[in-house]
Amino acid sequence: MSNKALWNQFDGWKKDYKWVDLSREFSPDTPHWSGFPDMVVEVPFDYPDGFFVHKYTVVSQYGTHIDAPCHFPQGRRTLDQIMPEEMVLPLCVIDITDKVNENVDYVFGVQDILDWEAKYGQIPEGAFVAMQTGWSKREDMNNFDENGIKHFPGWGIPALEFLAKERKVKAVGHEPADTDPGIIACTEGYVGEYYILDQECYQVELMINLDQVPAVGSLIFVGFPKAMGSPGFTARCLALCPKE
Amino acid sequence: MSNKALWNQFDGWKKDYKWVDLSREFSPDTPHWSGFPDMVVEVPFDYPDGFFVHKYTVVSQYGTHIDAPCHFPQGRRTLDQIMPEEMVLPLCVIDITDKVNENVDYVFGVQDILDWEAKYGQIPEGAFVAMQTGWSKREDMNNFDENGIKHFPGWGIPALEFLAKERKVKAVGHEPADTDPGIIACTEGYVGEYYILDQECYQVELMINLDQVPAVGSLIFVGFPKAMGSPGFTARCLALCPKE
Repeated sequence: MSNKALWNQFDGWKKDYKWVDLSREFSPDTPHWSGFPDMVVEVPFDYPDGFFVHKYTVVSQYGTHIDAPCHFPQGRRTLDQIMPEEMVLPLCVIDITDKVNENVDYVFGVQDILDWEAKYGQIPEGAFVAMQTGWSKREDMNNFDENGIKHFPGWGIPALEFLAKERKVKAVGHEPADTDPGIIACTEGYVGEYYILDQECYQVELMINLDQVPAVGSLIFVGFPKAMGSPGFTARCLALCPKE
Repeated sequence: MSNKALWNQFDGWKKDYKWVDLSREFSPDTPHWSGFPDMVVEVPFDYPDGFFVHKYTVVSQYGTHIDAPCHFPQGRRTLDQIMPEEMVLPLCVIDITDKVNENVDYVFGVQDILDWEAKYGQIPEGAFVAMQTGWSKREDMNNFDENGIKHFPGWGIPALEFLAKERKVKAVGHEPADTDPGIIACTEGYVGEYYILDQECYQVELMINLDQVPAVGSLIFVGFPKAMGSPGFTARCLALCPKE
């Protein structure tokens, strides 16, 4: 049997779709959570007649990365337990940039989801929902105040609960380095992050270029090694998007 | 505009297609080229109330990995210069397992391509061509003889030249840790590897599960970090395959 239907779909993508890279560069300059060391790159082999090899020393949550459920709640799935069919998902992008421009401590709420659904239809089951905030364009993403409290937007627990329970999403993603709004992470802890991972969802942090993706109709490809027992890894996220 | 045509394609995949994982586990036990050290995994954070992080020290060519063109020929593209549209490609699998079972030093030739095309049609431009040998199922993939020469199958240069020039492939992949047949790698050097990378193609080594993928009609997703200036990285390769 020679079933080339999928190749025909692929050919159609060349005309009507575009690729958007949602991942940051992987280098010592890449933004990462403030408590981690910079990655180290060595060159163990570099022969003039060819054979050039790098060696990396890097934490599992570096740059644009995936958090497996076990990153916080003990006993939840490790990275190798996320299945291939969870690595390509319908992508919904919910843009709250205007609200964040008015209030950097903005907490993403259930109403933001309902407003989005009124325009674009219900979030399909098994989706990847990304929160677009414009935060990735800031140089200072931590935005510490004089008391050492971070100020950036994030997910509220009611919204995460709605996505996990009512919409049965597979994953969420965002531009800052934390799931929770900075002020909540600094005062109450990583409560939203714990909650969403405890639902066996995964998440992607430090995403970029969400403003190049339409609200509906794209697919996200989340690529990462099958790292045994791992709480996460740097992830390469690509979106295949309808041209608008 | 709400263009959900791609989501409809995605829904169709759930019924008529299957996912096959073409990448090995990423762990210290993972096979890798004989000249590289094992990877090291540390656990810098593991708090009982949650926050579990790994730290990896690993060469760029570890387990199932992508080689960027610059891995051998100087001045060729680094990993970050491989574009998103090169990371999802039509996958052609050419099975030479029977020939390898008769002769472990088998050199993949132009005739193997022509025989395959007679059955399945011409390899489309911009494809990923994988050589299926069954070699990934062997425990001893190096297969050294008493003189320190490795014996395993590989690509012949005329076949690589045909794929690059006549079929304009984007990438090739194989199960052993080298492009060249072991006997050629050990006596003449990595001549085929140098050749195919010098064409600005990339390659994936140490692939598995190619026997679960049909000869034509699948797509391969090759996921890896956008590692700046890098000659390669561990890659997660998934195939979306028509159910047979």
